[in-house]
Amino acid sequence: MISNKRKIINDPIYGFVTLPDDLVYDLINHPVFQRLRRIKQLGLTNLVYPGALHTRFHHAIGAMYLMTEAIQVLKSKDVKITDDECRAATIAILLHDIGHGPFSHALEHTIVKGIHHEDISAMLMDELNKVFKSKLSLAIKIFKNEHPKKFLHQLVSSQLDMDRLDYLNRDSFFTGVSEGVVSSDRIIKMLNVKDGQLVVEAKGIYSVENFLISRRLMYWQVYLHKTVLSAEKLLVNILKRAKELSLNGEDLFATPALSLFLKNNFSKKDFINKPELLQQFVLLDDYDIMASVKVWMGHKDPVLSHLCGNLIDRNLYKIELQNKKFSATMENQLLEKVMKKYKLTKKEASYLVFTESVNNSAYNSHFQIHILQKNGALIDVAKASDQLNIKMLSKKVTKYFICYPKGI
Amino acid sequence: MISNKRKIINDPIYGFVTLPDDLVYDLINHPVFQRLRRIKQLGLTNLVYPGALHTRFHHAIGAMYLMTEAIQVLKSKDVKITDDECRAATIAILLHDIGHGPFSHALEHTIVKGIHHEDISAMLMDELNKVFKSKLSLAIKIFKNEHPKKFLHQLVSSQLDMDRLDYLNRDSFFTGVSEGVVSSDRIIKMLNVKDGQLVVEAKGIYSVENFLISRRLMYWQVYLHKTVLSAEKLLVNILKRAKELSLNGEDLFATPALSLFLKNNFSKKDFINKPELLQQFVLLDDYDIMASVKVWMGHKDPVLSHLCGNLIDRNLYKIELQNKKFSATMENQLLEKVMKKYKLTKKEASYLVFTESVNNSAYNSHFQIHILQKNGALIDVAKASDQLNIKMLSKKVTKYFICYPKGI
Amino acid sequence: MISNKRKIINDPIYGFVTLPDDLVYDLINHPVFQRLRRIKQLGLTNLVYPGALHTRFHHAIGAMYLMTEAIQVLKSKDVKITDDECRAATIAILLHDIGHGPFSHALEHTIVKGIHHEDISAMLMDELNKVFKSKLSLAIKIFKNEHPKKFLHQLVSSQLDMDRLDYLNRDSFFTGVSEGVVSSDRIIKMLNVKDGQLVVEAKGIYSVENFLISRRLMYWQVYLHKTVLSAEKLLVNILKRAKELSLNGEDLFATPALSLFLKNNFSKKDFINKPELLQQFVLLDDYDIMASVKVWMGHKDPVLSHLCGNLIDRNLYKIELQNKKFSATMENQLLEKVMKKYKLTKKEASYLVFTESVNNSAYNSHFQIHILQKNGALIDVAKASDQLNIKMLSKKVTKYFICYPKGI
Amino acid sequence: MISNKRKIINDPIYGFVTLPDDLVYDLINHPVFQRLRRIKQLGLTNLVYPGALHTRFHHAIGAMYLMTEAIQVLKSKDVKITDDECRAATIAILLHDIGHGPFSHALEHTIVKGIHHEDISAMLMDELNKVFKSKLSLAIKIFKNEHPKKFLHQLVSSQLDMDRLDYLNRDSFFTGVSEGVVSSDRIIKMLNVKDGQLVVEAKGIYSVENFLISRRLMYWQVYLHKTVLSAEKLLVNILKRAKELSLNGEDLFATPALSLFLKNNFSKKDFINKPELLQQFVLLDDYDIMASVKVWMGHKDPVLSHLCGNLIDRNLYKIELQNKKFSATMENQLLEKVMKKYKLTKKEASYLVFTESVNNSAYNSHFQIHILQKNGALIDVAKASDQLNIKMLSKKVTKYFICYPKGI
Repeated sequence: MISNKRKIINDPIYGFVTLPDDLVYDLINHPVFQRLRRIKQLGLTNLVYPGALHTRFHHAIGAMYLMTEAIQVLKSKDVKITDDECRAATIAILLHDIGHGPFSHALEHTIVKGIHHEDISAMLMDELNKVFKSKLSLAIKIFKNEHPKKFLHQLVSSQLDMDRLDYLNRDSFFTGVSEGVVSSDRIIKMLNVKDGQLVVEAKGIYSVENFLISRRLMYWQVYLHKTVLSAEKLLVNILKRAKELSLNGEDLFATPALSLFLKNNFSKKDFINKPELLQQFVLLDDYDIMASVKVWMGHKDPVLSHLCGNLIDRNLYKIELQNKKFSATMENQLLEKVMKKYKLTKKEASYLVFTESVNNSAYNSHFQIHILQKNGALIDVAKASDQLNIKMLSKKVTKYFICYPKGI
Repeated sequence: MISNKRKIINDPIYGFVTLPDDLVYDLINHPVFQRLRRIKQLGLTNLVYPGALHTRFHHAIGAMYLMTEAIQVLKSKDVKITDDECRAATIAILLHDIGHGPFSHALEHTIVKGIHHEDISAMLMDELNKVFKSKLSLAIKIFKNEHPKKFLHQLVSSQLDMDRLDYLNRDSFFTGVSEGVVSSDRIIKMLNVKDGQLVVEAKGIYSVENFLISRRLMYWQVYLHKTVLSAEKLLVNILKRAKELSLNGEDLFATPALSLFLKNNFSKKDFINKPELLQQFVLLDDYDIMASVKVWMGHKDPVLSHLCGNLIDRNLYKIELQNKKFSATMENQLLEKVMKKYKLTKKEASYLVFTESVNNSAYNSHFQIHILQKNGALIDVAKASDQLNIKMLSKKVTKYFICYPKGI
Repeated sequence: MISNKRKIINDPIYGFVTLPDDLVYDLINHPVFQRLRRIKQLGLTNLVYPGALHTRFHHAIGAMYLMTEAIQVLKSKDVKITDDECRAATIAILLHDIGHGPFSHALEHTIVKGIHHEDISAMLMDELNKVFKSKLSLAIKIFKNEHPKKFLHQLVSSQLDMDRLDYLNRDSFFTGVSEGVVSSDRIIKMLNVKDGQLVVEAKGIYSVENFLISRRLMYWQVYLHKTVLSAEKLLVNILKRAKELSLNGEDLFATPALSLFLKNNFSKKDFINKPELLQQFVLLDDYDIMASVKVWMGHKDPVLSHLCGNLIDRNLYKIELQNKKFSATMENQLLEKVMKKYKLTKKEASYLVFTESVNNSAYNSHFQIHILQKNGALIDVAKASDQLNIKMLSKKVTKYFICYPKGI
Repeated sequence: MISNKRKIINDPIYGFVTLPDDLVYDLINHPVFQRLRRIKQLGLTNLVYPGALHTRFHHAIGAMYLMTEAIQVLKSKDVKITDDECRAATIAILLHDIGHGPFSHALEHTIVKGIHHEDISAMLMDELNKVFKSKLSLAIKIFKNEHPKKFLHQLVSSQLDMDRLDYLNRDSFFTGVSEGVVSSDRIIKMLNVKDGQLVVEAKGIYSVENFLISRRLMYWQVYLHKTVLSAEKLLVNILKRAKELSLNGEDLFATPALSLFLKNNFSKKDFINKPELLQQFVLLDDYDIMASVKVWMGHKDPVLSHLCGNLIDRNLYKIELQNKKFSATMENQLLEKVMKKYKLTKKEASYLVFTESVNNSAYNSHFQIHILQKNGALIDVAKASDQLNIKMLSKKVTKYFICYPKGI
């Protein structure tokens, strides 16, 4: 008997997603998971691609769906996976992003310094494991790669995991960048396990190549799109300035949870010693940030109010992107113009003019994608591909950018 | 020459949308329009359909795109439309929803009583018309149906307007309810003008029938989905309670703009007399509401904190929907249980137990869809359809629902 | 172990379709099934919708896929279905159209009179059952509704069977008539069994309504599209004329198999007594017909060559469609014009001018779609729908048409 | 006024395609163009991807649609294109494949030796130009690259032409190989003209990379899929054998047109001297071939009947594909086995066992894709791409294959 009709979730990408069991259902309904509904997967990307409003909640459900598909394929190929392992792998992918904060990509090291979202994910999984009476222990082992069947961890986290398959398709769908579409269906059908490793059967090689190229395209066209960068840097600087003012004793409007993190610099150790910090952290989401930013538009600090007004009205930094560093001269000239025009100190002006870099490599040759050849041998996709220059793909590409106010 | 490369907007539904001219570009970049980026088209519907996060911004752009397509079709059929009229109709549809507040469908009469979003739209258009030096005058005339070519207004607002064509497709796309898909392409190709009225050519009759049925389906499957209703009523009650407490002098956390509207009952007259009210209203969006609701989870008022916790953790009312009224007995029994269980007064308990109704008619026979027959005569679609019972469709269907806490 | 990699078939609609077992694989590879690759699902519809070239082969595979999905859903709801029944139901739907000849919709009673494609399907299933050593016996029982679990037959053939779900979606996809899209996914999720009958759960009512309306739209927009009718009637008349000439001893180019059926009027009895007739019949497909029609363009009989040239060059009959009969006067006037213009006898001219009718009812109230209400009761969808006038839908709509050469 | 309602063609890929003018309408309705309805774009590919039944007719219409889009984009960027040039470019792409015969990819040099489909296209265009009273002269000039505005020819035929954009999308759509999807929309928006050359603006670089990779994927996954190759080689050998027998005086069933080409080896000179040959050639299409092959299943020549039965029943050659040549030893051993098993001479056996090669390069560096940089300079995409190894892509990849009967 179906115990609960809410066990079907509608996904415009995969159609209906049926929740595999009651534990998954209960996890999804837990407030710590529900909060992912209020954290957008792509942060401010919607300022460029207005459809990109999908949440980490939806992504986690989608990745879970792909995991159940992948496990079914592997089992049909006689890979041994117990029911417990199946449930645990499903839970591991469901919770893999549980520790993300609001605008995580941009704000990870601004709201809380020196603590990665992976650390918070691990802490939250441990908390949930207590709530669910140790039923998550195996899932946590798989998440941490401490379970002997390595391929289960690789389905959760590797160069070709269910996380990436879902987010590429999902981000393509909601941005409308159709070139990012990956045949997750086809790739999953080609998965297998050899010597305990997750592998792709030889005939899947073109799909893997396409996956790598699509991912690269999505990086430059979406994730590192220069206007997206510009918006994210604006938000980072807003939070930095707000924190600076708060630490100096200025009173800023903010939700209590956000206020706490503005007024203090917590370390990883603090999180470990004061469990209530984690409780406060999970109260934060996109709403705290944007509601506060809107109010700060009227703050008396000219830097903060200027930056906030620009974000809210989408009057973003002018940004230039190139393959080599920008000269210090150029940066200094812009700084001086801004200091003069806005009557700011150099330190203040550095919130309006700055240069940084981003980088990306489409393939990380340290964590290989293994192709299973017809003769049973494994070979790295970089070698299996007769043409794609995967060595090139695995090279880190660095791009430099400079931001400054429009009209300077 | 293309003056600005940002003039293309990516839409996962229509592909690339090219902005037709500089005035449209400037309007879209105005803060009053940009704020629509922060107001979801379907409010809390994402609690049922997690993809339904699209905004009024995206919808307005989409409707504008369909308008340009429709005008092109009409012009190809020798309907006289001047360039000025074309631009004005485009702007009229772009701005048709400009006055919507956050969660407008639910909160329209909670945040501000007795003033419709159409009133605010009209006020904001007048404001923008000042900013843009009367360049919007013709658009406003078309919006208000004061322009002699009635069909232009009908493209903006009628039973088969660009607004509906866009939102049905958009809501289908983002919810994943594929049955709501309407062939906007086909319907637009079949549009024509006869005796100054917008009409559909005879061969488009099946598409119009399908449009009416799809719209009806979307109403019951999405817009009036009982879980969506339950969530919206929860939010309405939260705001009602917050306002009640505020008017009683309780201090509630809120953004300044929201605070203003919680602490005062403004009338339409107030809006007319105090222009600054409109300025405050346009500061409100989804972020003010949800950020505040989250904080109120910890408020000392047991009703408010209970309701807020339930919304944030998606622990919605149990809701029953039926074709006839619920008995007062049933409502009273539930009220008493709740009063006892939660130690509340009857008035307080009425925030947790209540009954209401919703209604919908798929077709409004007062504002007809005209079918242009081959012999040149016009006929109402209700008569042109050989089979669909449009009389039935135009009947208002009322459904009654009762809400109460789970576990009662 | 996967015994054969060809066990995955690519479907642009459902993605990858995995063949469920070896028997299905062997059936699909049998020449009698492979021939369905050469019979288009929609005959000459591609003359109006150029994408509509999909075959009965693809449709049969698709319907089989939906059957496996439906059975999985029913089993998850504790409906008892044995593995043998599952395989048999799958095979029954796979083979349900096996007896279709080329352009079956049009030519069913032209190539062979008095014998339905269902009869030939049954004969071919019996033949295959011999080849496959009685492994198809249960499938044949389900196909003939002789198996006690009636719902299995209903999945194969009823008002809401896997056949219809697949062909509506498939025909929509390949024609591009997006309004015909049906949420097969959603409907299948809502299937259940009650008292041995296939039923739809109450919340699926809107999807069933949409299914009925979409089917109706597809009938008038595609299957009975007047230009499609015109083309089909042209082909029917070509074959009639060719057969008439052949029976009169004229020598016509044709493949041997087609020649046999042109030169003889076989009855159902003949098929039963001479098994070689069935062998010849299964040699026929779209290629025999069109290759011969092309050659007949040069035949000395003016009627045959005229008709064939018109079909090949897509110079179809002018066709008028209306709700009442055409007058005999009109038909006679046209006949006389044609007799004079083309110098034909009245009998010959009747190949160029004729009137007929088509009809369709979207719902057949004799074979109901049962809705399972929350209280466990079954109710016909015609009564469950609060608004759709299903009585109207179940009324047979008849349309009359007249065909005559263009330029008359 | 719209002169004819048939001027809209339904395309499941682009939606509605409106024919731009009456001349295009008349060309499409000409028998020489209508015959493309009977020639599948991808020949026997449907034996692997059952949806791949789309025709050269549909592709030509689609490419024409993209051409009208591209011209509109270029004109919006102030590229000078007269109305006559616009119509001519549209017609040039519409007719670019007019000379293709049935299963052209496979049979081009089997049915008629030494004459390319481009030659026949040119001859047919000249014929049509006579029929249409020289209205096609400019189109033919553009097709032959004899018009001064080179970019118009490049839109018809280059490394990034409307032909390729359409066929990649169309073949992806109908095969269901979603990875082949190319953003024709995005690429077309990025087109421009510089120094008379068609160029892509800098920001389109990722889309061009993706286009090249997708095309490569389609080559190995679809066009040169080993089972497709196997089927095509089977058909080639059937025609070769049939022609061999025919030239030796054997009587073979065939349509008159096919018969003519089986019994004679015509040269290009013959086509020029005997205009009736062209008339016969355009009578050939897929139907002649497959109808004859089916009859030949019963031919007394054991090689011909064996091959034909294998094609019709989809009992294809076993095929092996590798990067180096197969050894003569291997081929000889297989030949001997086949000679013995089927009692054939070595020459006869060579129809059943043979080795060949295929090759493909994704990019041809002789005909560059020019990227227009922001500074106005042109640069080859091979240099503009920071990472894709386009030198590698432009290398010709050769793969060798050996075919032999299953079960040997």
